[in-house]
Amino acid sequence: MFQIKVKDGRGRIGKLETPHGVVTTPNLMPVIHPRKQSIDVKDFGAEIVITNAYLIYNNQELKEKAENIGVHELINFHGPVMTDSGSFQLSVYGDVDITNEEVIDFQEKIKSDIGTSLDIPTAPYIDEEIAERDLKITLKRAKEAKEYRDKKGYDLLLNSVVQGSTYMNLREYCASELAYLDFDLYPIGAVVPLMEMYHYDKIVDIVMNSVRNLPDSKPRHLMGAGHPMLFALAVAMGCDLFDSAAYILYAEDDRFLTTRGTYKLKDLNEMPCSCEICSKYTIDEIKSMEKEERTKLIAQHNLYVSFAEIRLIRQAIYEGSLMELVEERCRVHPQLLNAYRRLGEYVDDLEIYDPRTKKSAFFYTGSESLKRAEVKRHLNKIREMPKKRDLVLLPSYRKPYSKNIPKKLENFYVYGDETDIDLNSTDFMVVDIPFTLIPLDLDEIYPLSQNIAPKSKDLGAIDEVQNFLSEIIPKYNQVLINEKLIDDYNIELYKIHPQSDLIKYKYNDIDKIIAIANYQFGEGAGQALFNGKIKIEKSKNTGKIRHIYDGENNIIVNMRASDSFFILSKEGAKRLHKVFEYPKLRVVVNSDSEPFTREGKSVFSKFILESDENIRATDEILIVNEKDDLLGFGKTLLNHNEMMDFKVGQAIKTRKGFKE
Amino acid sequence: MFQIKVKDGRGRIGKLETPHGVVTTPNLMPVIHPRKQSIDVKDFGAEIVITNAYLIYNNQELKEKAENIGVHELINFHGPVMTDSGSFQLSVYGDVDITNEEVIDFQEKIKSDIGTSLDIPTAPYIDEEIAERDLKITLKRAKEAKEYRDKKGYDLLLNSVVQGSTYMNLREYCASELAYLDFDLYPIGAVVPLMEMYHYDKIVDIVMNSVRNLPDSKPRHLMGAGHPMLFALAVAMGCDLFDSAAYILYAEDDRFLTTRGTYKLKDLNEMPCSCEICSKYTIDEIKSMEKEERTKLIAQHNLYVSFAEIRLIRQAIYEGSLMELVEERCRVHPQLLNAYRRLGEYVDDLEIYDPRTKKSAFFYTGSESLKRAEVKRHLNKIREMPKKRDLVLLPSYRKPYSKNIPKKLENFYVYGDETDIDLNSTDFMVVDIPFTLIPLDLDEIYPLSQNIAPKSKDLGAIDEVQNFLSEIIPKYNQVLINEKLIDDYNIELYKIHPQSDLIKYKYNDIDKIIAIANYQFGEGAGQALFNGKIKIEKSKNTGKIRHIYDGENNIIVNMRASDSFFILSKEGAKRLHKVFEYPKLRVVVNSDSEPFTREGKSVFSKFILESDENIRATDEILIVNEKDDLLGFGKTLLNHNEMMDFKVGQAIKTRKGFKE
Repeated sequence: MFQIKVKDGRGRIGKLETPHGVVTTPNLMPVIHPRKQSIDVKDFGAEIVITNAYLIYNNQELKEKAENIGVHELINFHGPVMTDSGSFQLSVYGDVDITNEEVIDFQEKIKSDIGTSLDIPTAPYIDEEIAERDLKITLKRAKEAKEYRDKKGYDLLLNSVVQGSTYMNLREYCASELAYLDFDLYPIGAVVPLMEMYHYDKIVDIVMNSVRNLPDSKPRHLMGAGHPMLFALAVAMGCDLFDSAAYILYAEDDRFLTTRGTYKLKDLNEMPCSCEICSKYTIDEIKSMEKEERTKLIAQHNLYVSFAEIRLIRQAIYEGSLMELVEERCRVHPQLLNAYRRLGEYVDDLEIYDPRTKKSAFFYTGSESLKRAEVKRHLNKIREMPKKRDLVLLPSYRKPYSKNIPKKLENFYVYGDETDIDLNSTDFMVVDIPFTLIPLDLDEIYPLSQNIAPKSKDLGAIDEVQNFLSEIIPKYNQVLINEKLIDDYNIELYKIHPQSDLIKYKYNDIDKIIAIANYQFGEGAGQALFNGKIKIEKSKNTGKIRHIYDGENNIIVNMRASDSFFILSKEGAKRLHKVFEYPKLRVVVNSDSEPFTREGKSVFSKFILESDENIRATDEILIVNEKDDLLGFGKTLLNHNEMMDFKVGQAIKTRKGFKE
Repeated sequence: MFQIKVKDGRGRIGKLETPHGVVTTPNLMPVIHPRKQSIDVKDFGAEIVITNAYLIYNNQELKEKAENIGVHELINFHGPVMTDSGSFQLSVYGDVDITNEEVIDFQEKIKSDIGTSLDIPTAPYIDEEIAERDLKITLKRAKEAKEYRDKKGYDLLLNSVVQGSTYMNLREYCASELAYLDFDLYPIGAVVPLMEMYHYDKIVDIVMNSVRNLPDSKPRHLMGAGHPMLFALAVAMGCDLFDSAAYILYAEDDRFLTTRGTYKLKDLNEMPCSCEICSKYTIDEIKSMEKEERTKLIAQHNLYVSFAEIRLIRQAIYEGSLMELVEERCRVHPQLLNAYRRLGEYVDDLEIYDPRTKKSAFFYTGSESLKRAEVKRHLNKIREMPKKRDLVLLPSYRKPYSKNIPKKLENFYVYGDETDIDLNSTDFMVVDIPFTLIPLDLDEIYPLSQNIAPKSKDLGAIDEVQNFLSEIIPKYNQVLINEKLIDDYNIELYKIHPQSDLIKYKYNDIDKIIAIANYQFGEGAGQALFNGKIKIEKSKNTGKIRHIYDGENNIIVNMRASDSFFILSKEGAKRLHKVFEYPKLRVVVNSDSEPFTREGKSVFSKFILESDENIRATDEILIVNEKDDLLGFGKTLLNHNEMMDFKVGQAIKTRKGFKE
């Protein structure tokens, strides 16, 4: 059983239930050697571990002991234990002398929480025929294992590994087939050789093509990715679990793991981090130690660093700053930067999973930030927005722009058919990086105001602006471009509009609330919500709009101060429900849950029958029954795909219900 | 007394001698409160601390105690102690009731190691007239303090603070005046308000304009910069010391310092780092603690993190990867990225301080890397290089390129006056990012082979290539551009040269060693070194050139495997000395040191009379006396400016001396 608690992009904080307790994800499972473990990983924050069932099975003494006392007692770890099946040994030493059913039986017998079937790890760049042949066996064994476990009624949760080498069609196929078979967890396998080759861009392809075809409701485990340098990127692609044998293997080889990469002891002049080991010992002390003691201390450092990174990633998800962390981490090696750029090619997918609003501001940390989901989403909104006759483009001022543009703006260059200025037929937009075109009425909503970019403009950003302008400008009769923009973005225009001095943005509450509603809920929402007599109440302190009432003093919507999005109240929900047709803005719940929703109780995923495909996490939506009766309204915690896929956990925080 | 041990860019690892011991720089001086200190900073790695002499002076009890037992005993710290003068109190509370001479007397009396005169901290963006007036007083007091200290023969080392608000002319003037007065350390003052405003780009201007006018031979202290997020950038600009009251002030305000910025306790869901505190306690435990205990633990975290960053910066200097660290750190906030981009405008200055070769490869971590000293230096070399009639431009292959270009290259587009192919009149260069044009003969020297860039090309990089090509191409009669480049760099050319199939790079040892010698030592060096009969010896394992002999089996030069630069031997040094006129490649030492140099002893800065202005750290140079007799040759540890300025420490590791 797995559920999502907090989301940021494809990253998620989840809770995984196992027979031996609940694990918070993202998390790291240190690999425990069943015979020669010398470090107690609990002391470093391990909540779940992984050990190798095949190694235990293959040693008569261990096997008997494990069968008697269970794997938890054997390795002295009483939280959740995942076991691996021997596939790795298979891939290294050829055949292993255990069948698929035996491996499942054994894992159940020793009370493993999560077991694995005997898959075939296929190396990258191998012949496609071999990869296909291997994949067939992997899938056959997966099916066998699943059916066997179910038939036997075992408690064991089951892993099944996505394979397919570096062939994306095979990875996609494997993921969809395994998804169909409905396992409890999905490891993504055979990426270690790619890590060793620094082919991180290939890993991005593999993970994205796997994850897109796996159910959202199950955790994914990036197998063998024990280097903390990669955790943030992997989590941003939807991975939930990591395993680390690296902490001890690297230590045995005198190597320190850090989020900046690996340091060899011989190359170190200083201890490289803030952990207890690095603060307590000098590098000379470490260098002069006996091998055994040194290995233990370096392993401890490796664990401290790895778990710290897991915590920091979770913190970033809580804040909504996961991509900022990824962008920082991906600067530590040019091949990681290359991988991050590759991830930019999956922006359409990432956008679907990205919450509409976040606690943190969007940080522009380099031209790569232009490819982020938030930017893509906004540009699409601008593309779709109905346009007036003319467009005025203004330079950027301090945010929010509308509060800081000078009363008098001079010298507008004209593009298109010069006609008389008509302010009623004119859209006003600010040109800025990275959101390119920001309608002045929308300048306070997330992330158009909640973003920071360096004052200096890089060529990537200038190019992005130029391209988007040449796409949007032709949609207007006449575009008036302020002189400041001409230089900043190398725009070639020569003629100043003779009525330049008539151009003036007139702020208007009604225009603004209509624009925001249309942006947030879809075209027509503004007219629907603010139809008839309305009253706008502003904050006495900030002067910002807070509540909007109808003629009878019922609140239609409230405006949230942090991101200027609207929160519906009953009247607002009814108005949207009336104007927008099913399935727009709807989440449809089944009849069992109808009374609970009407009472204002939160909606759980398992009660959801259908939903609007455009729903993202943090959207304000309508809750209806199959007859499209309005039952309530609330804020989503998940997107459409996730709501449809999960069978446990909350999907919607209901704001209010409509009693029958 | 201060000396440089290792350099990377303007960053340096130094040793500062004080009456109470030697301090390694870069370093952080925790601020010790003379009355209410609760944390023993020694436990966290503090080697030097700072405390406020004025606060001690102003409290009768403390004053008497300090005068009796000394400041070290008073604050229970027996390493070097720096004292501040009360200038900060002056700036906050107006006048202080102590004179400049009293403050110097008192600091000497309490046995402070490093004292400070009473300067006037001038706020940023203040009226220029006020800044000028303040500066006059600061300079007058500095002069007074220095003369007084010298007259009295005090042991106290003396600080004098660079002020001048945000006026670069004033900062430059102040720095040069103070440099002339010859203090022991140079704090750079009044930058804290700029930090609080996130005006990091202004800090870059201030530090660069100060440092350029301060002597290289004295440590610089960036006053009040206690945030570890800024340390790497500041060190890269030549700062050596930081002070931190932040560790405790932030803790009292429930804020965690990290290299990623500041976290407020209330916003934290997870402990944010790998330190002992973050690993031992959960965030809930910290949140539920009594204020006093919590403050102490957060302060400890802050110290662990701050000292870890100092260690990591030193490690980066040892490796030659300081700029990579800075580029990573500057991604944590858009305003820091802005500051880093500003630093790119000082590349000419940074280039002078950047060692010619480093242990680490150059990492391209974003289009900002194009502005680094290494790139600028190489492009200048290409500009100055004599050119053949024609130029062939090849696409990049795996490095080193010359070992991996295909035997047969097809389809070369022609630019310029089409003439017959003449391979003897043709330069062959690879086009690649970030070094743009890499002559094939030079493709193994640092950093042309020792660099990694992402395969994906950003617009900044493409633009850089296009610009440099349009600068260089017109210098040739005919340029032949391989078809692959046409697409990669959007080059507009339509005609393929009819003799395309004749184009072929012929590797030739002699051409290669001449090219390297000319690149390394200057035009003409290759012809001088490898004149007459020579023998080239290669490594049996790698096939790389190792030694080059003359006709009598004397080694002329050795080639270093790691960076393919030449190391002179006696014959090589003599040949260069003969061909190049004074002062080229020379360091001139005085007659006292002549015998030592002739014996092969290393050269100390104080013996150096003059040197070639083009000398950078890690250069192979000639050591001569005033009559230009060749005394020896060696490798520089410092650049020209530094060698001329330092009075202590090694400047040249002599390889061999010539006995008389």
